[in-house]
Amino acid sequence: MRSIWLEADGWSVGIIDQTRLPHVLATLRLTSLGEAAHAIKAMLVRGAPLIGAAAAYGVALAVRADPSDAGLETACRILAATRPTAVNLRWALEDMRAHLAGLAPVEREAAAYRRAAAICEADVAANAAIGAHGARLIYRAFEKKKHRGRVDILTHCNAGWLATVDWGTALAPVFRAHDDGIPVHVWVDETRPRNQGASLTAWELLQHGVPHTVVVDNVGGHLMQHGKVDLCIVGTDRTTARGDVANKIGTYLKALAAKDNGVPFYVGLPSSTIDWEIEDGVRDIPIEERDATEVAEISGRLVSGEGIATVRVIPEGSPAVNYAFDVTPARLVTGLITERGVCPASAEGLLSLFPERASK
Amino acid sequence: MRSIWLEADGWSVGIIDQTRLPHVLATLRLTSLGEAAHAIKAMLVRGAPLIGAAAAYGVALAVRADPSDAGLETACRILAATRPTAVNLRWALEDMRAHLAGLAPVEREAAAYRRAAAICEADVAANAAIGAHGARLIYRAFEKKKHRGRVDILTHCNAGWLATVDWGTALAPVFRAHDDGIPVHVWVDETRPRNQGASLTAWELLQHGVPHTVVVDNVGGHLMQHGKVDLCIVGTDRTTARGDVANKIGTYLKALAAKDNGVPFYVGLPSSTIDWEIEDGVRDIPIEERDATEVAEISGRLVSGEGIATVRVIPEGSPAVNYAFDVTPARLVTGLITERGVCPASAEGLLSLFPERASK
Repeated sequence: MRSIWLEADGWSVGIIDQTRLPHVLATLRLTSLGEAAHAIKAMLVRGAPLIGAAAAYGVALAVRADPSDAGLETACRILAATRPTAVNLRWALEDMRAHLAGLAPVEREAAAYRRAAAICEADVAANAAIGAHGARLIYRAFEKKKHRGRVDILTHCNAGWLATVDWGTALAPVFRAHDDGIPVHVWVDETRPRNQGASLTAWELLQHGVPHTVVVDNVGGHLMQHGKVDLCIVGTDRTTARGDVANKIGTYLKALAAKDNGVPFYVGLPSSTIDWEIEDGVRDIPIEERDATEVAEISGRLVSGEGIATVRVIPEGSPAVNYAFDVTPARLVTGLITERGVCPASAEGLLSLFPERASK
Repeated sequence: MRSIWLEADGWSVGIIDQTRLPHVLATLRLTSLGEAAHAIKAMLVRGAPLIGAAAAYGVALAVRADPSDAGLETACRILAATRPTAVNLRWALEDMRAHLAGLAPVEREAAAYRRAAAICEADVAANAAIGAHGARLIYRAFEKKKHRGRVDILTHCNAGWLATVDWGTALAPVFRAHDDGIPVHVWVDETRPRNQGASLTAWELLQHGVPHTVVVDNVGGHLMQHGKVDLCIVGTDRTTARGDVANKIGTYLKALAAKDNGVPFYVGLPSSTIDWEIEDGVRDIPIEERDATEVAEISGRLVSGEGIATVRVIPEGSPAVNYAFDVTPARLVTGLITERGVCPASAEGLLSLFPERASK
């Protein structure tokens, strides 16, 4: 199962409604630009690479309905406005526009579906490569422990296959290492407020049989102080040209704890998440502010009784704010795991793997 | 209203059932050692100073029923086993034992109630003094901003009047500054897994009319990176002789972010939370591990419908662990706000305020 697919009808797009996991595995059919935009904005699909893939299919659905220049531009504008932080969204839309704008309208539908499929396949291939490169880091950690016990990996949020088309970024190395027989155990940050760690990462690991333990976001520092984490691996929604990393809110705190305790802190990313145009992530990456309701209310399976319920957890009258991402400066990142290999989080490191960017 | 009181009958002990806040303000009468021990263990009362006060009254209830030497020892043993991290519990029990052991059994009941009341009054006085000393730090932050805007204070967990007998430790300076007319605004960490920030701190601030905003625990680093926090103030459950601070899990992460961004990080504490016998907090402070259910399930007011419900937020089959505290090394603490004034978080700093401990 992938996180997004073309349905058997050859044009509608299947997704998993990720807001209903881990309690219900429900799929949905997207049939229009509006439905695709809603799926991204309301986070039925989320994770930078999957947002890019969903946006590409959103363009395909749009040009199917209206292949005109105006239709294409409107689709790109509407989709670009759904989420501000992940650069993959912008990247995928620019890629689609570049492939379609020069074609006659009548050719656009078929070309859009082909290109969206190609973006998905490229993501899967990139993530498989990230898995192979990252698994070597995990194996090295296991060697450092003289092949005793297990390798304890902490991750934040969900950067597994649900966040991408398949495999994942941060979790790809974990799945690969597990499949290769390295004993791994994952500390899963629950990742408030939307609990993508507890809901999605834990669910993925459970399905795959990977040993794991859910912890609240407050716990990671304590674990690292006590030698219970061998390495951290997280994903990213946007990486700057010098290696600053925007990822789910709270990532920066874990990176600080890793630094303070000498724990390696890695970031897994397909190069589509690199924004080559900016350097200073804290200054220049726009941080999405989402609705405060996501902080004030939590959904889950009723413990007594049946079904899913939503409960309010802050007092009536207390305001809340909801910043969705933070930026981890490159100085706190041990290495970037890309589809081309692992490099230091620096301009030099990135250019060593992506020399074609050096002339820019 | 205080957090603990002697009932009009002159012997039973009133408390607020803090597990039901912020949705329901319910009081309870404790009438036996067993009920007092349960109230502490199940966190109907919590917060290091209040735990000490509740334990003192627990001893009074116990000797009322059985004033023998064996009765006194059993009471102290049962109460000491309720929570491992807060040193106030041990301190209050030792204080009660020291006051009662030398008395004839027939004199113990009256003496126990007198001593428990004295412990409560001493706590209130200490916290009022912490409020006065800490408010000066807040005023200085306001001066540094040239009296423009507001002073933004971040706090973690609940160290307000609900955590003590009255006033609070970390929040005493906030209440005092607010009452003195300094414009303060508090960022309230929700403090997973038991949400004492969202449930108790937000409720206290709301009742008192102090502007505040609830954030998930992941947000503090981002706020500090963007200059949105002028100072942090937290409480502590145990402070070592060199100034290491055990407080609610996640405090260490906020202290790291404060250090990384040059934000002053203060800890408010009555000297009853100082454990003069240990130096290295990370090594020597026992960290309570509570039931994983507290991570897996969350309670709140049903958004649709009536009443309080509990929902499960992690997949069936995924394990969780629940460490309740972590230790912030003294090097990350700007200053300790005690009832005798503010001092550096160091052995020298503490001894400058508590010279009577120097000979030990």
